[in-house]
Amino acid sequence: MSAIEPFDTVDLIRTKRDKGKLSTAEVSWLVDAYTRGYVADEQMAAMAMAILLNGMDREEVRDLTLAMIATGERLSFDGLSRPTADKHSTGGVGDKITLPLAPLVASFGVAVPQLSGRGLGHTGGTLDKLESIPGWKANLSNEQMRNQLESVGAAICAAGSGLAPADKKLYALRDITGTVESIPLIASSIMSKKIAEGTSVLVLDVKFGSGAFMKDLKRAKELAKTMVALGTDAGVKTSALLTNMNVPLGLAIGNANEVRESVEVLAGGGPADVVELTLTLAREMLSGAGQPDADVEKALKSGQAMDTWRAMIQAQGGDPDGPLPRAKESRQVLADRDGVLVEMQALPFGIAAWRLGAGRARKEDPVIHSAGIDLNVKPGASVKKGDLLFTLSADEPERFDRALAALEGAYRIADNGTPLANTDPLIADHITAA
Amino acid sequence: MSAIEPFDTVDLIRTKRDKGKLSTAEVSWLVDAYTRGYVADEQMAAMAMAILLNGMDREEVRDLTLAMIATGERLSFDGLSRPTADKHSTGGVGDKITLPLAPLVASFGVAVPQLSGRGLGHTGGTLDKLESIPGWKANLSNEQMRNQLESVGAAICAAGSGLAPADKKLYALRDITGTVESIPLIASSIMSKKIAEGTSVLVLDVKFGSGAFMKDLKRAKELAKTMVALGTDAGVKTSALLTNMNVPLGLAIGNANEVRESVEVLAGGGPADVVELTLTLAREMLSGAGQPDADVEKALKSGQAMDTWRAMIQAQGGDPDGPLPRAKESRQVLADRDGVLVEMQALPFGIAAWRLGAGRARKEDPVIHSAGIDLNVKPGASVKKGDLLFTLSADEPERFDRALAALEGAYRIADNGTPLANTDPLIADHITAA
Repeated sequence: MSAIEPFDTVDLIRTKRDKGKLSTAEVSWLVDAYTRGYVADEQMAAMAMAILLNGMDREEVRDLTLAMIATGERLSFDGLSRPTADKHSTGGVGDKITLPLAPLVASFGVAVPQLSGRGLGHTGGTLDKLESIPGWKANLSNEQMRNQLESVGAAICAAGSGLAPADKKLYALRDITGTVESIPLIASSIMSKKIAEGTSVLVLDVKFGSGAFMKDLKRAKELAKTMVALGTDAGVKTSALLTNMNVPLGLAIGNANEVRESVEVLAGGGPADVVELTLTLAREMLSGAGQPDADVEKALKSGQAMDTWRAMIQAQGGDPDGPLPRAKESRQVLADRDGVLVEMQALPFGIAAWRLGAGRARKEDPVIHSAGIDLNVKPGASVKKGDLLFTLSADEPERFDRALAALEGAYRIADNGTPLANTDPLIADHITAA
Repeated sequence: MSAIEPFDTVDLIRTKRDKGKLSTAEVSWLVDAYTRGYVADEQMAAMAMAILLNGMDREEVRDLTLAMIATGERLSFDGLSRPTADKHSTGGVGDKITLPLAPLVASFGVAVPQLSGRGLGHTGGTLDKLESIPGWKANLSNEQMRNQLESVGAAICAAGSGLAPADKKLYALRDITGTVESIPLIASSIMSKKIAEGTSVLVLDVKFGSGAFMKDLKRAKELAKTMVALGTDAGVKTSALLTNMNVPLGLAIGNANEVRESVEVLAGGGPADVVELTLTLAREMLSGAGQPDADVEKALKSGQAMDTWRAMIQAQGGDPDGPLPRAKESRQVLADRDGVLVEMQALPFGIAAWRLGAGRARKEDPVIHSAGIDLNVKPGASVKKGDLLFTLSADEPERFDRALAALEGAYRIADNGTPLANTDPLIADHITAA
């Protein structure tokens, strides 16, 4: 335990505190020494705050990412007969895109190894949504995942704890020390796991707007550029879309209802925004995997994507025809006047769904798969007094008032005019390697 | 343990991270919650880094200081028949001023409750120096101190651990997290202890220059102004001198030899810079205590200050006539050419004395009271080849080479010209309450 250490922790903190640059060897040692407990939590917390306030350049962020990868295992799909493509979203309200996207892309012969997480706070996790399906299991061994990628093409499963353990430790520390909102730290956290997952192509869906982690497009773009640079430097063909999260995505916010909406998209229907984002991300992934001309729209209409969805769900023990859970109680919210719905803010709707039971406050809490919100209209729609705006669903009726409290002022009907939230396009920008 | 807390720690960190202002209630809770362990070390480390990088305004620093005082006991000398005056130095090489100063001021009927520390690193502590005197004891109970102040007037003793325990905890954290060099944190750390000590008058000796904690005058002045404002806000008559620490103060650097030099000053002799600084600080303290016209120079010449010194040493068990320890070995360093001594850098001489054994690297290490350096000349002196420049003293001769290595390039003899280190005056500025 008393091995001679090549660096002094306080010196490294001082370097970053004084706006200096950390060398590759320094970053690499710091992350390794933190993982084995030689660098203390309080030291890493001071370093994280210094990084948040003084930044890191491209080389430092790359070094940090590679150092976190080096603390754990690294998957490889080299022997697979298919090329691999992966998608990562920074998270938003009603974001169920992975569900239709993974089988759609896989239906073109591309392997989609989608390692996902469970949700915490108001944004639900992809695994939570899929666990609404009777029998479906999130855990696959590395070998099971590999076999499923070879046979079905798509696998959505829980990320093993062996990937970038330094990131897990650092993330827990950032969470309690006010150091989450740092682009170098967010980018390295996401990309360390994505690079360790061993994909060849990676498409990032970076959300911006009131319902996203990044409120403004400029910061979201900076994050996207940082991550694209990181992926590119690590030999992964990486690109990013900047997408609008001012309004909820689609009409369903919850878990089981989001699966239902995803199945509608796979059946050739579904809300226009979910379809558009699914198609755009699919084209981006397939283009990266060498199929720029794949007709993804046709694959939704023809049932090709649905076949892969059914095979993917079955491969993980799920029944694609099994009944999805329904909540015991519901409450409808109606328009109180005639006019145009001009606003429907993503964040309060996310919080309301969370309060209905769709999300969890602590890691160990369960989610209630049937709870959530179904929108009947989206901003831009003309409504008459008494028209249905949205429906809340929950098992316990006492949850409705708390959910409705979160929605106060979150939607607005005006005489006329352009809906505010529609001034930003759904897909605002496209970032590729410089 | 699960009492409801009025604030969320992460919210407070975010406020300071985003350059916001913490309220009185927030600062007060934070310090109290940190002291009782509810706020974790890693959270306080992130907060300290945010404070270091984003600063604190006058109210916040005052709130922080008062909150630290509130975590411990507060002394009071209200019933004493004499007014109280205290001095604090930010520390420098050869700084033994407290030794002649406390008895000199006390000899005018003022109580000088001088709570001091032991040294760490290259600057020795006042208690370490006094412990060179046979029999002298640093520890006094509050009652013993009070009695000594009433009878003798001066007491130099160890600060009890009951004063501002939050500061002790926070200082240890700052030491390992690269967050020492923050003016709000330094000022509140020093002033929380000084205000808790209950003095009515406080004179700060804020050092600047290569051998001081604050290298440049501008930062030192900012620290001085912050501390004067803090003392004033807390009802203590506070002022500060900005004094030069580019060259060692006086001719003696160590422990026993610094006592010897202090006794020379008390006998009306001693090096000019030590005498000047002692007289200026004494005038400042006495002026604050209502005696602006006290003839301090005469009190040194007449033996008045020496009498108080002897009484003060005896009151704490010391023998003022007892032999001071002498080192077993010494090594003389001579001029290698004719010319003018133009440079003698304080910091390397401090480090050399430390390597000879005069300072400690860890709290639990002892100091060697006889070890140190005695200068024969100071910058500005004309020297001939072969003249004695300074003498190193230590018990173990093998320490000499390591000490001399620290001194390489630290002193310089030139053909002629103004000594570099003398371009700054000894006393560069005087700060009083705005």
